[in-house]
Amino acid sequence: MTVFNTLLEAVAHCDNFPYVLDPKKEDDEMHRAIPFLLGAHTIGHVLPSVLVALKDYNQTTPVFTISDSSVQFSETVQTSQERTLAVKALMDSWRQNKTFDVLAGWRDELYPVYGDENEPDNIAFVMERASAALFGVSTFGVHLNAYIRNDQGEIFMWVARRALTKPTWPGLLDNCVAGGISYNYSVKETIVKECEEEASIPSHLASQARSVSLITYYTCSPGALQPETEYLFDLELPQDFKPIPRDGEAECFYLWPLQKVKETILNNEWKPNCALAAIDFFMRHSFITPDDEPEYIDISYRLHRRLEFPTPRKGLNR
Amino acid sequence: MTVFNTLLEAVAHCDNFPYVLDPKKEDDEMHRAIPFLLGAHTIGHVLPSVLVALKDYNQTTPVFTISDSSVQFSETVQTSQERTLAVKALMDSWRQNKTFDVLAGWRDELYPVYGDENEPDNIAFVMERASAALFGVSTFGVHLNAYIRNDQGEIFMWVARRALTKPTWPGLLDNCVAGGISYNYSVKETIVKECEEEASIPSHLASQARSVSLITYYTCSPGALQPETEYLFDLELPQDFKPIPRDGEAECFYLWPLQKVKETILNNEWKPNCALAAIDFFMRHSFITPDDEPEYIDISYRLHRRLEFPTPRKGLNR
Repeated sequence: MTVFNTLLEAVAHCDNFPYVLDPKKEDDEMHRAIPFLLGAHTIGHVLPSVLVALKDYNQTTPVFTISDSSVQFSETVQTSQERTLAVKALMDSWRQNKTFDVLAGWRDELYPVYGDENEPDNIAFVMERASAALFGVSTFGVHLNAYIRNDQGEIFMWVARRALTKPTWPGLLDNCVAGGISYNYSVKETIVKECEEEASIPSHLASQARSVSLITYYTCSPGALQPETEYLFDLELPQDFKPIPRDGEAECFYLWPLQKVKETILNNEWKPNCALAAIDFFMRHSFITPDDEPEYIDISYRLHRRLEFPTPRKGLNR
Repeated sequence: MTVFNTLLEAVAHCDNFPYVLDPKKEDDEMHRAIPFLLGAHTIGHVLPSVLVALKDYNQTTPVFTISDSSVQFSETVQTSQERTLAVKALMDSWRQNKTFDVLAGWRDELYPVYGDENEPDNIAFVMERASAALFGVSTFGVHLNAYIRNDQGEIFMWVARRALTKPTWPGLLDNCVAGGISYNYSVKETIVKECEEEASIPSHLASQARSVSLITYYTCSPGALQPETEYLFDLELPQDFKPIPRDGEAECFYLWPLQKVKETILNNEWKPNCALAAIDFFMRHSFITPDDEPEYIDISYRLHRRLEFPTPRKGLNR
């Protein structure tokens, strides 16, 4: 397993979608991703491996207009409901035919895909969570850094060990609580719900979690493109409170000094994007500072990557 | 005076250098800025109005290689010392001839210009602070959000009114303390020094200021290009402590609830970049959240603009 010399390397390990696409790099299919367009907006990316399957499906069910340089919905698929149904039929077909491994992780959970501001709630359509990475659409989530201060004021962070049964990143370290934001949930509702489900943090404590920051990055792995926007919360817990796994997502929780958190990040023991949420905490709590972290600025750039996709412009708490 | 409908408009008012240059926009010279190159790096930008004067100077003192698409040092100017001397002679000449108004604000204060990692401390050369905007080079500063919590835990922010005698943005609102980072100063040294000079905050209090964040943006005004990196500090002051103007930079200080700070930002009463430091505080202290601020993500992108210039890669506290 790769280990990292610097925190910036750990950040870049997650934020690994190319900043400039170079289609000549034929050994890396990420460079040959093409835009999924909706009107004037790029709302996602499609990899060559997905494009092949999409062209195949489209021969019998022509719902997309496909060229070598872009994919978009065909003229017969124009409303958000029509798009939702077209994408659902496609994914049902791929799931049934076992075309893509990622669809084995089907969750029956809908994610919004944002588009033009003129759309209702500027949502272009909604799609199954597990299928989002096939279209490289922006997804949204929450991460909680839960911590205590000891009597000397020193910070200790609650860190989760992911269950060995998780389909993704089993056994790796994670933030105390994290989760995706489903269609029709607000950010605050999501964090309170996940606190209860993942760590048995009751709502009277979870509701004290404070919205403090945002990280944006674009991570990819073979066959999957994940531009992600994560709303970060801090929650200082009472010294005597212990998070307890509840829904089986977490194996156990550790209470660690920040130095230990940093060492395990450099040792590549974390789910990559969760390390970013912890590093953002390091910056906000002066654990790393510009005088002692030579790559402070570059870390900040990559924690706040500007994604080209439309953003929810009406707030999430509709 | 323009007022803003949203915080994003206030941010964009500061971060106003184009994201994509379109030289066809002839009425806006910002679009016709060309890169100032050093090896493989872009280390600044030169506006058409500066380019004319640079070509003129270069006829008698050929220290630059100038084309329609870029400016770089000539082959006779290769070391950091040679670059420093060449730029100093140029600026002395322009200052003497009153070629550019910005040089009237000469400060006898040196700013580093970062370049290749192989340079000593990766500093390509140093130049007079007042001249940096003519070459559009990255500059670095500190901003302090000083605040108190009342007995109910509510936050009140100390806001400075800039002196009417300041050459730039006289009479506008400002963060409690802010300043540029000169050559050979660390970030922490700078904040402690500025606290004493601008607001009479003694070092035993100032040293409790906590490094919490970074904002990066690219601001421009006629004839001046300012890509800036500002290290942010929070300092919770005792309830009974009052900052007092000392060096004449601040006219007075106000202690305001965050709602009043927001209103004055929307009313365009702030020096533009200082509003960004306050808005970053709003995010970190949950005064604005993703559920109630529809443009939360776009604000975050623009507070963390990725500047293309080299960064100090060895830390500032050498």
